[in-house]
Amino acid sequence: MTFERRNIKNMAGYVPGEQPQQSDVLKLNTNENPYPASPQVQQSLSAIDVEQLRRYPSPMADQFRQLAAATFSTSAKKPLTAENIVPTNGGDELLRLAITTFVDSGDSIAYAEPGYSLYPVLAAIQDCQCHPIALTETWSLPENFADQLNRSGAKLAFLINPHAPTGLLCSVQRIAQIARSFSGVLVVDEAYVDFVDPELGYDLVALVNELDNLLILRTLSKGYSLAGIRFGYGIGSLGVTQAMLYKTRDSYNTDYVAQQIASASLQSIDYARITWDKIRQQRQRLYEELAGLGLISLPSQANFLLTTVPGPIGAKSLHQRLKQLGVLVRYFDQDRLRDKIRITVGSAQDNDRLLQCLKTLLG
Amino acid sequence: MTFERRNIKNMAGYVPGEQPQQSDVLKLNTNENPYPASPQVQQSLSAIDVEQLRRYPSPMADQFRQLAAATFSTSAKKPLTAENIVPTNGGDELLRLAITTFVDSGDSIAYAEPGYSLYPVLAAIQDCQCHPIALTETWSLPENFADQLNRSGAKLAFLINPHAPTGLLCSVQRIAQIARSFSGVLVVDEAYVDFVDPELGYDLVALVNELDNLLILRTLSKGYSLAGIRFGYGIGSLGVTQAMLYKTRDSYNTDYVAQQIASASLQSIDYARITWDKIRQQRQRLYEELAGLGLISLPSQANFLLTTVPGPIGAKSLHQRLKQLGVLVRYFDQDRLRDKIRITVGSAQDNDRLLQCLKTLLG
Repeated sequence: MTFERRNIKNMAGYVPGEQPQQSDVLKLNTNENPYPASPQVQQSLSAIDVEQLRRYPSPMADQFRQLAAATFSTSAKKPLTAENIVPTNGGDELLRLAITTFVDSGDSIAYAEPGYSLYPVLAAIQDCQCHPIALTETWSLPENFADQLNRSGAKLAFLINPHAPTGLLCSVQRIAQIARSFSGVLVVDEAYVDFVDPELGYDLVALVNELDNLLILRTLSKGYSLAGIRFGYGIGSLGVTQAMLYKTRDSYNTDYVAQQIASASLQSIDYARITWDKIRQQRQRLYEELAGLGLISLPSQANFLLTTVPGPIGAKSLHQRLKQLGVLVRYFDQDRLRDKIRITVGSAQDNDRLLQCLKTLLG
Repeated sequence: MTFERRNIKNMAGYVPGEQPQQSDVLKLNTNENPYPASPQVQQSLSAIDVEQLRRYPSPMADQFRQLAAATFSTSAKKPLTAENIVPTNGGDELLRLAITTFVDSGDSIAYAEPGYSLYPVLAAIQDCQCHPIALTETWSLPENFADQLNRSGAKLAFLINPHAPTGLLCSVQRIAQIARSFSGVLVVDEAYVDFVDPELGYDLVALVNELDNLLILRTLSKGYSLAGIRFGYGIGSLGVTQAMLYKTRDSYNTDYVAQQIASASLQSIDYARITWDKIRQQRQRLYEELAGLGLISLPSQANFLLTTVPGPIGAKSLHQRLKQLGVLVRYFDQDRLRDKIRITVGSAQDNDRLLQCLKTLLG
């Protein structure tokens, strides 16, 4: 006997990327930062006494929210306040909260495809419909994307920028245009934004208080080397943040340790920036050296490359053979991606090892 | 302009108990354990290097689940396995997950009243109905409780045992009888179970594999002195745990640090047991000394006392005056509770201070 709702019974769960416990595996499959978090984060962690864990944490992560507002306000015409920031237990919780808050059962969500395979899972849990909208042949958003969103009747749409798994960056102007045209809430998942070349001047946060249907997702998992602590946050106008902050969020959704670490991360953001710069350099190097091996990648602004694997070896087989050599990359068994692998940009040494393995396999 | 669903727009959020940041406040309002977690928990926390936080945690907290199954299997006729355990980001997340998994919009939940004020909030978020069922004059469950549950059509019912805010314990036999008669899922919130006198032999977990609609909630917040890390878990038969484990739970809902600390807590459970024993001794002492001041409490098996405040001072006013003296207790502005305060059992010194303040105010 089962007691589940019909939609839960009929759905399949999300399957996370492989997380092997052996330390000798080179993990280039789930886009972690290869460099550890800052010494200040370590100090903040080491300073915690269990006596401080006896009591409940700040329900709303107040210190972090104030820091985040101050840190990202620099370019905003109207400065952010803590009320623009929604702290979450990882970025994934913000995606779930957005659906819980804005999408009724039977209503629908829309997203560009390919995208994040969690979206249809979250939709199934809420018992709502999905409208995937195909990216063009060059992996960009179709011209009439906002029209398609509106015609689908979606109450909520997800964009990933830089996009995963392609790594391509959409301009602020284009996103603003979509947000202005779309009648629902536009969630822009900026999980990889820290790796965007600063010279491009990409800054969507500056528009938060102008676009009342925009919700930006950020996470400490990638840029700040903290996938292990599960800390993300949303940035949006009060029209989108308040219901999540005061109504739909679990009352103590982020814990004391995570809050301390998250605050220390923003306080030492300059340290993280050094790692982002190193990753950009390695991204360029990897892009070029892969091309030298006949593996052509899309020009990525994220910390991974989507690389086409030519026959006869093929992407699935290359992914398997790399695994046998202790190197994990991501293979997506889905339309338009079956001839590609997604490779996380590692440290110089990580990339040396990957390239050495590829030379052996392809040579 | 707002984008929220109608039910979200119309609801009020949950208001957590006061969490003052000043260290000189005596906090007897949210039932924390007055003694810190074990030295082994501190060691496990101190041993964490930020390098370990770079990667994603175990998605399902595997080590903790195995430990929990082994720790609580002793009395189970059919031993528990990790598949009987659902790790959650605090006990509150399990409550939300249970509703998400088992209750459609428009369906209903039931619970004994008074109870936990989060239940109607979670119901409002899911857009489902509430059937509160009044406790009897002696604060026990009505004889026909299971019939009332079935007549209400509830897909899910919540019981708190020991009950909050009364502290009264319902027998295993009675709960088993309700579970057998009820056609939906019965969630038994055992947040305070660690404080039950061991001589009573209360052990509901032993019935988990016999009662396929039973889901037991546990938390490290109270018994293990870890409200700050947000770690709870469910124990149930596979019919109730599997959908939550593999479908409705956020994929990485507990973090690496919390998992390490939670595992260390179970490994050093004997240390926590010493604190539970001290709290039981203080509970008895406080019960008697309050009675000496004319404040009569219910016989509690939890780490708090629900105490009737006789006129002329009254419960609300006493709560306020205690606050002015830096002592927080909980006052519930709701039917049947307006002449009472709920006092968390503190350490011997905490209780000395509380009693001294009460003597001043009531003397």
